[in-house]
Amino acid sequence: MQKIPDGDDRTRYCCEQCDSIFYQNPKNVVGTIPIYQDQVLLCKRAIEPRLGKWTLPAGFMENGESSLNGAIRETNEEAGAEVIVAGDSLYTLFNLPRINQVYMFFRAELANLDFAAGTESLEVALFKEPDIPWQEIAFPVVKSTLEHYFEDRRSQHFPVRMFDVYHHKDRSVTTTLISHSSKSE
Amino acid sequence: MQKIPDGDDRTRYCCEQCDSIFYQNPKNVVGTIPIYQDQVLLCKRAIEPRLGKWTLPAGFMENGESSLNGAIRETNEEAGAEVIVAGDSLYTLFNLPRINQVYMFFRAELANLDFAAGTESLEVALFKEPDIPWQEIAFPVVKSTLEHYFEDRRSQHFPVRMFDVYHHKDRSVTTTLISHSSKSE
Repeated sequence: MQKIPDGDDRTRYCCEQCDSIFYQNPKNVVGTIPIYQDQVLLCKRAIEPRLGKWTLPAGFMENGESSLNGAIRETNEEAGAEVIVAGDSLYTLFNLPRINQVYMFFRAELANLDFAAGTESLEVALFKEPDIPWQEIAFPVVKSTLEHYFEDRRSQHFPVRMFDVYHHKDRSVTTTLISHSSKSE
Repeated sequence: MQKIPDGDDRTRYCCEQCDSIFYQNPKNVVGTIPIYQDQVLLCKRAIEPRLGKWTLPAGFMENGESSLNGAIRETNEEAGAEVIVAGDSLYTLFNLPRINQVYMFFRAELANLDFAAGTESLEVALFKEPDIPWQEIAFPVVKSTLEHYFEDRRSQHFPVRMFDVYHHKDRSVTTTLISHSSKSE
């Protein structure tokens, strides 16, 4: 059942049998931008949503792992790829308050070319920038990350960027770079 | 009850009555470094753990908000403080895989001096760097954030830093800056 626990100010899922409270908080989705020379590795999705569209390898961060290790694990699971990741690799962070998710992408180098589609991918392939299927990218957070990545490659300067993503009633999506002052609401 | 749902590879909490699956993923704890001139605003904790110790305002990110708005909300709730936050304010990110949390701190400026202890704080006060009660800081992630912040103030260069925090069996804690290559495990 749903109720407000003592001392709390929000409704939570509470089990009447064992008194457990299941707090529902935003979940982190972690992934990589796997690079080989001037190419990026993309996965064609074998599952809904966006079946058949291309994405960067990413998935839910699990208990017991760091965000970076989760991203490396997902890259291995979805693209069969081993990556080498530097310490300053955090690259984009997207808040998606409408669907209670936070996406984090890390820059990574493919350790070798032994990649292969995992169970959640139909196909994995390397793309040079002009060959990226821009009209067939699964999610706005992936498109935005790829656009910024190839732009930043020209200067070899990769600042961490944070975005808020708003999902509108007409199903359109706005991705806003958080770049101005923000005050308490 | 706990079981592995179809198509999954991990044990999850599953409700036998309604078939809901309660995925337990890492939770984000979001907070600010509220600065006024050369001083930082700290809160003396009114709750366990670490009751009576000093901390930066921070708390669990809730559904429906961005990480930054959650940090601003917590600053208002715990310190009664209004802050102004710039777009590039993400400052430290700590992975705590042992306790399934991710901490994020944002740099912020106090909008005014109208702060006051919230219900989870005994006291809130501004400290210059040499006056910070270093031996009475509640959590390693807070101590590390404060140390880096005052160091970076000297150069006015505030890179985003990511750390892994390991909790050992003897209750000691190691905070490691992720600064070297990392491969799939």
